[in-house]
Amino acid sequence: MTDTAELVASLLERVQLLEDKAAVHDVLTAYGPAVDAGDAAAVGRLWAENAVYDTDIRVMEGRDAITEMVRTAPHQDYIAEGCGHLLDPVNIRVDGDTAVATCHSLLLRRDPEADSFRVWRVTANRFELARVEGSWLIERRTARLLDGSAVARELLGRAGR
Amino acid sequence: MTDTAELVASLLERVQLLEDKAAVHDVLTAYGPAVDAGDAAAVGRLWAENAVYDTDIRVMEGRDAITEMVRTAPHQDYIAEGCGHLLDPVNIRVDGDTAVATCHSLLLRRDPEADSFRVWRVTANRFELARVEGSWLIERRTARLLDGSAVARELLGRAGR
Amino acid sequence: MTDTAELVASLLERVQLLEDKAAVHDVLTAYGPAVDAGDAAAVGRLWAENAVYDTDIRVMEGRDAITEMVRTAPHQDYIAEGCGHLLDPVNIRVDGDTAVATCHSLLLRRDPEADSFRVWRVTANRFELARVEGSWLIERRTARLLDGSAVARELLGRAGR
Repeated sequence: MTDTAELVASLLERVQLLEDKAAVHDVLTAYGPAVDAGDAAAVGRLWAENAVYDTDIRVMEGRDAITEMVRTAPHQDYIAEGCGHLLDPVNIRVDGDTAVATCHSLLLRRDPEADSFRVWRVTANRFELARVEGSWLIERRTARLLDGSAVARELLGRAGR
Repeated sequence: MTDTAELVASLLERVQLLEDKAAVHDVLTAYGPAVDAGDAAAVGRLWAENAVYDTDIRVMEGRDAITEMVRTAPHQDYIAEGCGHLLDPVNIRVDGDTAVATCHSLLLRRDPEADSFRVWRVTANRFELARVEGSWLIERRTARLLDGSAVARELLGRAGR
Repeated sequence: MTDTAELVASLLERVQLLEDKAAVHDVLTAYGPAVDAGDAAAVGRLWAENAVYDTDIRVMEGRDAITEMVRTAPHQDYIAEGCGHLLDPVNIRVDGDTAVATCHSLLLRRDPEADSFRVWRVTANRFELARVEGSWLIERRTARLLDGSAVARELLGRAGR
């Protein structure tokens, strides 16, 4: 029976880790639909209160700045013209109450004259998440255009660390 | 020992939920390869008998109508010219014997003159699945082009619900 | 108590399978970031010593040939100009100490004049992996351009087998 109790204890840890990975995946896969729906409140719920979203163009500090970005131009213009914010499959590393997620993102914008979409941006992404009161939230997202610059490559080179 | 038995019972539920999410993921990731292989029977096996595939252009009702679409023009023409049906990482919410999966899809078509592919469609997707005799099957897929229309945005806004 | 011990034994198998799927996913999602970072050593660690990477253009035999590809032209030129190697969600089938993973891949290259990226290649992929000394490694990757050819379609048609 001690053996069984020990096995159960080890299973609890292993299942918790699988659930944490799945929960981080749930957060990251909720982002694209929310941002393309233009649902600023749903986007905001994915980020920690004092989260930082650090892009090529500007740094947004705090959940309010991030939801403001969703609510305003140029983001709302992209939606009105037709756009998609997509990720590719995410490399997720969980370590206790923190996690690092690395992937590419795509920003596709509709080109009505060509009856197709233009791949406007292909970007390297690093998400840092934390478990906050039982829920996984994004604390920092760093995103850099894959234009050959060292900074985008360095971001991808740190996957899992 | 009662404690251990209780822990095991809770683990069973938690592992079942993780397995259900993985099984839904298996169904959705089998779709693209099957449809680009032009394998109508493999596509058909992913859908419930009375499934509905509701697109911008037309509504297919029943597994037979969906496999017929795979077997015929224009789908077979797209394959012959070179095409890829891709998803981005899927947000999956399981609730007992039903599940909702939300993601984007891409339809890429080869442009031989440009030695590249054209992003023909970027689409909002909502899949509703059910456990049927122990297997997860697609009961309804609703897909709308991300062209700025309210219906595509509303579809993404319902992710997880 | 026998019942509990039996349940625990079955849970161990089920959790192991979920962990194996997650571990294969970890390997495949580490590939794109490593290859776009130009980190040949990180790419090499994902492949078995005698791995084969079989593409439309050439067949690389052995981990050294694969890391050499990352370190040299034209790969390093693509990185310097701006590129992204992306997958779409991967269909993973684990069978004991081997696994098959099927998905699409995209190779996107920056077009500075158009302020956008060109979808240069959309490719059918089959990865065969094995557990080697406790770690999942890629033993063979077969990749064929989705240009309408039978070989690419056949590759996708074998998903999960």
